Amino acid sequence: MNDKLTGLRRLMKSHGLQAYLIPSADPHQSEYVPEFWKRRQFVTGFTGSGGDAVVTLDQAGLWADSRYFLQAERELEGSGFSLFKVGQPGVPSWQEWVVGNLSGEEALGVDPRVITYKSYEQLEKELSRRGIILKPIDQNLVDEIWSDRPAPPSGPLILHDEKYAGESVRRKLKRLRLKLAEEAADAHVLTQLDAIAWLFNIRGSDVEYNPVVIAYAIITREKAALFLDPKKISAEIKNSLEKDVEIFAYDDFQAHLNELAAGKKRVWLDETSVSQWVAGQLAESGHLILKQSPVTLFKAIKNEAEIAGFKAAHVRDGVAMVKFLSWLESEVPRGGVTEAGAAQKLEEIRSQQHLFRGLSFKTISAYAGHAALPHYSTSPETDVLLRPEGVYLIDSGSQYLDATTDITRTVALGPATEEQQDRLTRVLKGLISLSKTSFPRGTAGKQLDTLARLALWEVGLNFGHGTGHGVGAFLNVHEGPQAISYYRCIGVPLEPDMVTSIEPGYYKDNEYGLRLENMVLVVKDEARSTDAFAFYTFETLTLCPIDLNLVKKEMLTPEETRWLNGYHQKVREALTPFLEPEEAAWLEKATRPL
Amino acid sequence: MNDKLTGLRRLMKSHGLQAYLIPSADPHQSEYVPEFWKRRQFVTGFTGSGGDAVVTLDQAGLWADSRYFLQAERELEGSGFSLFKVGQPGVPSWQEWVVGNLSGEEALGVDPRVITYKSYEQLEKELSRRGIILKPIDQNLVDEIWSDRPAPPSGPLILHDEKYAGESVRRKLKRLRLKLAEEAADAHVLTQLDAIAWLFNIRGSDVEYNPVVIAYAIITREKAALFLDPKKISAEIKNSLEKDVEIFAYDDFQAHLNELAAGKKRVWLDETSVSQWVAGQLAESGHLILKQSPVTLFKAIKNEAEIAGFKAAHVRDGVAMVKFLSWLESEVPRGGVTEAGAAQKLEEIRSQQHLFRGLSFKTISAYAGHAALPHYSTSPETDVLLRPEGVYLIDSGSQYLDATTDITRTVALGPATEEQQDRLTRVLKGLISLSKTSFPRGTAGKQLDTLARLALWEVGLNFGHGTGHGVGAFLNVHEGPQAISYYRCIGVPLEPDMVTSIEPGYYKDNEYGLRLENMVLVVKDEARSTDAFAFYTFETLTLCPIDLNLVKKEMLTPEETRWLNGYHQKVREALTPFLEPEEAAWLEKATRPL
Repeated sequence: MNDKLTGLRRLMKSHGLQAYLIPSADPHQSEYVPEFWKRRQFVTGFTGSGGDAVVTLDQAGLWADSRYFLQAERELEGSGFSLFKVGQPGVPSWQEWVVGNLSGEEALGVDPRVITYKSYEQLEKELSRRGIILKPIDQNLVDEIWSDRPAPPSGPLILHDEKYAGESVRRKLKRLRLKLAEEAADAHVLTQLDAIAWLFNIRGSDVEYNPVVIAYAIITREKAALFLDPKKISAEIKNSLEKDVEIFAYDDFQAHLNELAAGKKRVWLDETSVSQWVAGQLAESGHLILKQSPVTLFKAIKNEAEIAGFKAAHVRDGVAMVKFLSWLESEVPRGGVTEAGAAQKLEEIRSQQHLFRGLSFKTISAYAGHAALPHYSTSPETDVLLRPEGVYLIDSGSQYLDATTDITRTVALGPATEEQQDRLTRVLKGLISLSKTSFPRGTAGKQLDTLARLALWEVGLNFGHGTGHGVGAFLNVHEGPQAISYYRCIGVPLEPDMVTSIEPGYYKDNEYGLRLENMVLVVKDEARSTDAFAFYTFETLTLCPIDLNLVKKEMLTPEETRWLNGYHQKVREALTPFLEPEEAAWLEKATRPL
Repeated sequence: MNDKLTGLRRLMKSHGLQAYLIPSADPHQSEYVPEFWKRRQFVTGFTGSGGDAVVTLDQAGLWADSRYFLQAERELEGSGFSLFKVGQPGVPSWQEWVVGNLSGEEALGVDPRVITYKSYEQLEKELSRRGIILKPIDQNLVDEIWSDRPAPPSGPLILHDEKYAGESVRRKLKRLRLKLAEEAADAHVLTQLDAIAWLFNIRGSDVEYNPVVIAYAIITREKAALFLDPKKISAEIKNSLEKDVEIFAYDDFQAHLNELAAGKKRVWLDETSVSQWVAGQLAESGHLILKQSPVTLFKAIKNEAEIAGFKAAHVRDGVAMVKFLSWLESEVPRGGVTEAGAAQKLEEIRSQQHLFRGLSFKTISAYAGHAALPHYSTSPETDVLLRPEGVYLIDSGSQYLDATTDITRTVALGPATEEQQDRLTRVLKGLISLSKTSFPRGTAGKQLDTLARLALWEVGLNFGHGTGHGVGAFLNVHEGPQAISYYRCIGVPLEPDMVTSIEPGYYKDNEYGLRLENMVLVVKDEARSTDAFAFYTFETLTLCPIDLNLVKKEMLTPEETRWLNGYHQKVREALTPFLEPEEAAWLEKATRPL
């Protein structure tokens, strides 16, 4: 029996709770959560990044999606938590489960810091329908039973050089304050770490893969305040920052929020990410503006320096990929290369590239059936040897001082089947169709998603994930607001200088998985634009060959073949100067015209 | 000076209002509003279907979109209302205008019956940000100054024969109550006239083009109550209806709402259409469920009898169209045919068709530059003679007892220009691409909208409206929830047995307009479906040739040509038996294979 549950239930009783919600989120809605905030992992033992837990006085459940079914079953053994497979027929959502297990007047508790204002409101509405009470519990109950809790990260804060950032903090603050004026807002509260890092041109190492610093920020018409652990800042950096912003301790944030509330200030909060706790602190201001933070769009539209950085970084990243793929081709037949080993090798090669600062996410190195899981994660238990047969998928990316990269390639380690070639060619047709499309100003990514699927739909196939996501500039590999995705309602138009991925795929359960991912830049389509109306298109940033052993030329239209040959020529010309002779020879062959 | 404004302002003062909102909506959010509810038209003189008015103590404005700029300018002359052109640069929305013209503590009044709960909440939020008060005024101020107000429509209610409806009222109520149970709702309130007409298998003549009856309905787990003018029901129909539903006077609705509220019942309201007034009456119940009405989806998925009706009606409607188009071709050169005359002729022909019950909307009969306005409406001032040159567009539809139709064709009245042929062929490619696409279960219309545009995007062109809308079965020509539209967030998946229009177009200001519209039925794509996963496609319902004089064969792919020839063969075979010899000869030529 899990004595964490015993302790938790004792605390629940003392707070008059019949149930307690333990989300996987942190107070900043980070995609990757620092160790000391991995409360759900501590309590359940489940290490997956997504998944919420609910504990009642006699039951405990963890809700995980299909990515994690196997892993969760393994990790939950003996934890006292039963696994609820999200999306499986007949499996209740944790909300439905709470409603089913609590009766009127009973209470579900949650730490208001780790649930968004929107989800909290929604949840409160659902529960109240059945008379169940939602109780915010300020002190996180897990922390109270977490004896050996890791310390908060304390890595140093670094300044992001304006030569890469491309815009001064002062200018960014000026633009932000203009938006505040338009909304008649007195202040803007930022809680998302990448937004804060972008605004103040700071970076850090507090979150795995995301070069951000744990912080809060409040920007008023006159001042800006940054709340973080002062130990992370050298005196020199402090002086430099204080030209534009006042530095306070992380825990001073609450007092400043309460001051805004007491002053009845009109405060603008980011609608989707702000926590119930922050909104609660400001409630009495009576003037909350819940709307997407202006920083989200500012950050998404890259400036000249950032675009230059993306282009430069993609040459280095492409060189690393070619070194890796040529190594893989020669090494696999010799034996001894595993999924984990290959990922390791690629990281070594990348780490030797100029301005490398780490990976942008955990490399997906997936062989054969493993690749059928779009989010497969290699572990000691699952690692396998790569044999000179079948198909191998690698989805990886780097953080460079001048940009963030994200690329997926699928290669045949030996002769590929007709079916694999047919499917990969359809995935490629999707990539090409989207990459070369031209679309009118105002078009949102969701309107283009289908283009990546048509060639698969033609034969009754599809893939089960979105087609593209925004990417930060030496920031998070996933950022909004734009997305090329059918399942979101996001209507944000694609605008010039936005960066997004294009990553169609095809997955055959237990057999193989195929995905091709390029990063692209939205640019004006001069040829099609008129004075009256602008058209946009994509410029591909990623530089790495697509495995021709998996392409059926006869399935490509002449335009598609032209696109592929043109792309390969561009790759060859860009990367060859930086390759060893035998790597250059490999690239020459890999990019041969069809 | 408009003495209506004088009267209105006197009333505003007595209610302590600095501004009064006069929306064009009626209490049921009808697309077409009965005369006695056209308050905005009475006050402003503007007869367009869309457009809201706001009156302050010293100003008055009407907000209309580009469809109505010319008409509104003409009709507003001397009314004391200034025209605000919605969507034009620098033109404030009426909400912004109110905020700009009222100061804190001042009040905007509105009749809560003619504004939706959602819009009211949204508006209240916006105004409160500036300290402006939104006041619901139960008594409509316009009614008080409307001396010669028309009487409410009093046409008889008819029963919709189950042979056409395909499902008994009892069975519909049973399905609805299952949904109420799932939501733990005690009652469902229906305010949309087409939803009520569908649920109780009743039809009427209270609203132009929409065969509905002005009514409210409340459905509980045990009972159903219908609120309408009893004079509309014969004793015989009353008896028949009362097998399933209790009949009350329209004005008894409020008392029943208050009863639900007093009983603290959980009441389900249709989220997007319910009025602030209805929600307000129920507020004290404390258990409002705001969610799309289940009837919306029930109504959208047609049953066997309804589908049979759509197919039969489209043969008759196609026959009428062919008789009209062949008449047009021979008559125009003789002179004397105007836009209005052509529309009139088509209505005459249609009215001779079996089961005809009227038009489903005002025919858009648009010649040359007029057709560049997608929603052009012929009026005595604008009517023109059709000459044997240029391009003519006709968008029209009928109400038949067994279905509702909506079709657009564009024909060359003389030699067409290269450009017109190129554009129409691109519009046709869009129609074909969407008509023959196959898509996986779960796909929403918004994901397919782009397919109708690609051929235009290729050359830097586009069209500025959605691509398709649901159509009722002897009901409203526009119904939800599904739509093939990029600009809505509607994620409702297309399901088998849904009916939608596909209507791409191209419009060149002041020169010409092209649009092709077919109605289609969503059907299972047996060829592409597997046991694991279903694929769907469209079956075209509309039967009418596409003018080959406007088609450039060399621009069509072999598959597109095959589709067009196949469609024309189907049209020929379906309609010829019902045509006069010379009409059959015309059709033979019009549907010749390319």
